[in-house]
Amino acid sequence: MTDAVLQRFYCVIPAGGTGTRLWPLSRANAPKFLHDLTGSGSTLIRATYDRLAELADHRVMVVTGNAHRDAVLEQLPELDDNSLVLESEPKDSGAAIGLAAAILYHRDPKSIMGSFAADQVIGPVPVFQDTVKEAVHAAATGKIVTIGITPTYASTGFGYIRQGEELGIENAPHAKNVAEFVEKPSEEVAKKYVESGQYLWNAGMFVAPTKLMLQHLEQNEPELYAGLIEIAEAWDTPQRNETTARIWPTLKKIAIDYAVAEPAAAAGDVAVVPGRFTWDDVGDFAAIGRLNPAAELGGLTVLGDKARVYADQASGVVVSDTHRVIALIGIDDVVIVDTPDALLVTTKEHSQSVKKAVEALKAQGDTDVL
Amino acid sequence: MTDAVLQRFYCVIPAGGTGTRLWPLSRANAPKFLHDLTGSGSTLIRATYDRLAELADHRVMVVTGNAHRDAVLEQLPELDDNSLVLESEPKDSGAAIGLAAAILYHRDPKSIMGSFAADQVIGPVPVFQDTVKEAVHAAATGKIVTIGITPTYASTGFGYIRQGEELGIENAPHAKNVAEFVEKPSEEVAKKYVESGQYLWNAGMFVAPTKLMLQHLEQNEPELYAGLIEIAEAWDTPQRNETTARIWPTLKKIAIDYAVAEPAAAAGDVAVVPGRFTWDDVGDFAAIGRLNPAAELGGLTVLGDKARVYADQASGVVVSDTHRVIALIGIDDVVIVDTPDALLVTTKEHSQSVKKAVEALKAQGDTDVL
Repeated sequence: MTDAVLQRFYCVIPAGGTGTRLWPLSRANAPKFLHDLTGSGSTLIRATYDRLAELADHRVMVVTGNAHRDAVLEQLPELDDNSLVLESEPKDSGAAIGLAAAILYHRDPKSIMGSFAADQVIGPVPVFQDTVKEAVHAAATGKIVTIGITPTYASTGFGYIRQGEELGIENAPHAKNVAEFVEKPSEEVAKKYVESGQYLWNAGMFVAPTKLMLQHLEQNEPELYAGLIEIAEAWDTPQRNETTARIWPTLKKIAIDYAVAEPAAAAGDVAVVPGRFTWDDVGDFAAIGRLNPAAELGGLTVLGDKARVYADQASGVVVSDTHRVIALIGIDDVVIVDTPDALLVTTKEHSQSVKKAVEALKAQGDTDVL
Repeated sequence: MTDAVLQRFYCVIPAGGTGTRLWPLSRANAPKFLHDLTGSGSTLIRATYDRLAELADHRVMVVTGNAHRDAVLEQLPELDDNSLVLESEPKDSGAAIGLAAAILYHRDPKSIMGSFAADQVIGPVPVFQDTVKEAVHAAATGKIVTIGITPTYASTGFGYIRQGEELGIENAPHAKNVAEFVEKPSEEVAKKYVESGQYLWNAGMFVAPTKLMLQHLEQNEPELYAGLIEIAEAWDTPQRNETTARIWPTLKKIAIDYAVAEPAAAAGDVAVVPGRFTWDDVGDFAAIGRLNPAAELGGLTVLGDKARVYADQASGVVVSDTHRVIALIGIDDVVIVDTPDALLVTTKEHSQSVKKAVEALKAQGDTDVL
């Protein structure tokens, strides 16, 4: 298929965030996106690449921390110096995605970028790809196009997108205007959102012309914009390292939502395409139970190549990152994560409290296992 | 104190049994008696020795498996070739305790032996010692004297002793005749026993003249008796090893209860002294919670020198045999036993099912961790 619009499409994969709620599996030096959390045989970042590479004719750019360079290249040997953007220190999504936009714009002013986090689980792939195609076509009309997720329950853990009128774009029949972005709601409000049918989850996925991204960035965060443009102009020259080392540390930390998406929505420049695929951000270990239904038939989901588990009247999730024998007796909805230097035992219900444990361990100096 | 009767007293400590319900802490090559299960700083066998050695003026004999020789000597460096009886293969308590009796009788026909398992927790020590002294004096009148434990609940896991009339023995004012031994009862029957006040738990502790032990053994198990006498006569000669190697493997496996105690009771030769000390056979991990009250104040009992535990809304027992960080969140009455090659997660309520897990692991070939 030749599709002139799709030929302008570049895929950007920001790979950041430790995934603290998945400790002790996910660590500062082995974050969530480097793990296979679905038993598919692929790490989350590899699966993300495979979902998108063909659609972008392998024009894929990954933005990640310097520390993860080798691990990412091991997962994605297709990448090279032109397609791997390394951050010397974390600067939040505004700088990370903004730099990708600036580099791509500098290389191709007509480029349309799509930004897709490296640590989400999505399927079926063809349905996802159709949604992305619609988003690319909608973006080509001069919109920042988010991909919204149809809520399956009244989550208080995600931001929501209120859908406006249909836009009637050719090749993007489901695209609508975005009326507003709303922050994580209370449970009561979340229920109303879901019942209304007007709201979608904001999964942080969007597709947009890089030119439009940069216009909004310039308007809202002119200093950040100027710094990113200076780096981008040096990127494909021998001055890349010097310029980056000089400017990156000075950049403001701000989320792309505040730097671009929300002001753009207020200006009427943001559209949304509702995703008709299933989506999970694998926010905690309870999600791992949901995402491994086949193994869960016996009541216990077991993840890990080397797992040696004996279960008697037990249900829940076991993630084994060791070769140890794990015996479970008479315990329901348990979550056990067994790694060489740290063990977590909790319940599905308390999965979200893992973050608090990590903070406490940090505070008490147990940083060797974080 | 010079006490002519006590000068005939020899202490025998049978150290056998893996303690399967304490897996994965207790193993075939590191059985229960080699662990410190009370946080006292002493292994159970060392604490047993220390409770008894002075009373017997250090005439202590340990009977254990060949495989545990080095570990036992490390715990009890006081032992030597004359006081350590090694079994080349397990032959049950009849042969183990019978051989000790035969050796002691051969050395001193007036000897009175006391048999005390290596893996029980008892206190306060002076109260226990007073009870043993009474038992020695009662034994000197020509009785096999069990030490019974006053039941604290309607246990279905122990045999019971029905007390008969008082014997009126000097220096053993609490000694009574044993009316009968009864096997582990149903819960209903156990309740009646406890309510009646007539029954004591059979803890397997007894004191008896070695001569009387051997008389009953000869009457009930003449072949076993003959074999043990032959070994005992060779024991303190250069023929010990040859004789033992030839005869031990041929001996019948039978518990001392059936070979001696029950027939002796039927013959009216058995007395009981009720113990006024606290007693625990540390039968499962729930017992470890009971035995460590100080540490349990926060709801969680933690055992292990190197333990690094983070707990949030958690109660139960953690036994750490590693240096790993263990994080527990939102889980009550849990039992976690963390060892380098095996992990157990269960609840206090299910502590008794650990034995079943060990049997299943054995059946499925995971013998490396048993």
